[in-house]
Amino acid sequence: MVVSSNLRHVVYMLAVSSLVLGIAEAASLVVRQVGELKQFNGIPGLTHITLAGAVDHGQKEVEAWVETIIPGRGTPIHRHELEEIFIVLKGSGTVYIAPGPESDKNFPGEPEAIPFSSNSTFSIPWNAVHQVINTNDEDLHVYVIISRPPMISYMYKDWNTPHDAAVSIDLPWEKPEESTPTKDEL
Amino acid sequence: MVVSSNLRHVVYMLAVSSLVLGIAEAASLVVRQVGELKQFNGIPGLTHITLAGAVDHGQKEVEAWVETIIPGRGTPIHRHELEEIFIVLKGSGTVYIAPGPESDKNFPGEPEAIPFSSNSTFSIPWNAVHQVINTNDEDLHVYVIISRPPMISYMYKDWNTPHDAAVSIDLPWEKPEESTPTKDEL
Repeated sequence: MVVSSNLRHVVYMLAVSSLVLGIAEAASLVVRQVGELKQFNGIPGLTHITLAGAVDHGQKEVEAWVETIIPGRGTPIHRHELEEIFIVLKGSGTVYIAPGPESDKNFPGEPEAIPFSSNSTFSIPWNAVHQVINTNDEDLHVYVIISRPPMISYMYKDWNTPHDAAVSIDLPWEKPEESTPTKDEL
Repeated sequence: MVVSSNLRHVVYMLAVSSLVLGIAEAASLVVRQVGELKQFNGIPGLTHITLAGAVDHGQKEVEAWVETIIPGRGTPIHRHELEEIFIVLKGSGTVYIAPGPESDKNFPGEPEAIPFSSNSTFSIPWNAVHQVINTNDEDLHVYVIISRPPMISYMYKDWNTPHDAAVSIDLPWEKPEESTPTKDEL
C-alpha cells in the first residue's frame, strides 16, 4: 500500500505546514506588492486585484480591491447586504442606483444616474441595486472597499428584473482557488 | 414669551430638516470630491482626510481615510480592536509591530521593523501594537481602511509602556464637530 502511505504523508505534511503558516501569519505582518498580486479578468472589460481579502489574506471584517474598467464597460447590475465604498483614483464614469427589495416595488425600476470624476468617493447604500460604468474614453481606476467579506452578490439581468429573480453568483476572487489535482506519478 | 416661541420654532424646523435630510441620504447616493473634504492636522506631520466615515457620512461597518505623512513623522505607537488595511500610494516607510495584550508579556517590547514601498499593501493584525513612520525623504501617501468605526485607539508612550497603561484618546476626526454656540442677537 505504497500509494496510501504516500497520501497519508502528504496529508500530514499539509496539515503541519498550514499550522506553521497560520501561526506565522497571526504573529507578524506581510507587505504585499500590488503588482505581484493575482489578477482576475472574469467580468468583461474589468480587471480585479484583491489587495487584502478573506480568501487569500484572512480578512474577516473588511476587504480592499483595486479595479480597472475600460471605456464602455462596468459592473453588472447587482446588490449586496454590506457596506461598499468607491474611491475614484483616475478616470470618470457614472453610477446607476435604484431601490432594493426594501422598497415598495418588486423590481428596481429606472435607476438614478450619478456622474463621478477622478479624485472623488461615494458609498453604495445598503442593498441598493447599482451598476458602475466607465462612461468616458479613458480607463477608470477605482479602489473598492467592502464590509462582511466574502461578498455575496445578487445579479439582475436588467432594471426590471424582479428582486426575487436576481441570481447569486460566485465572484471568481471570492472563492478559494481550485486545487490542481496532483498527477499520479506511477 | 417671544423667545420661547422662537425657540420652539427653531427646534421644530431642525427636527423637520434632519428628517428630510435623513430620508434623502438613505434613498440616494452622494459623490464627494476629495479636495473638498475636511482636513485634520491634529497629529504632527500627518494630514488626515476621512473619505467615508461614521461621523460625517453614516458609515456603520467600514471607514476609508487618506493620509499624508511628511518625512520623519508618523502615527503614535497604538493598537485597536478592529481590522486595518494600509494601501501605500506614494512614498515609502517602515511599520513597527509588536504583540498586544493577548501575548504573555504585559508590555509590547522591541517591535519588528518592516519596510514598505509605494504600490504595496499590508494589514495590521488585530490589536497588535504598531506605528507607521515615513522613514524616507519624500511625502508618504496612504489609504487607510478600518472596520468597526469610529476607531477607539490605545496610545503607548513607548514600546515598554505596560498594556494597561495605554491611554484611549479621541481621534479628532472620530468625534462630531462641536456646534458653534449661536450668538445672542439681543
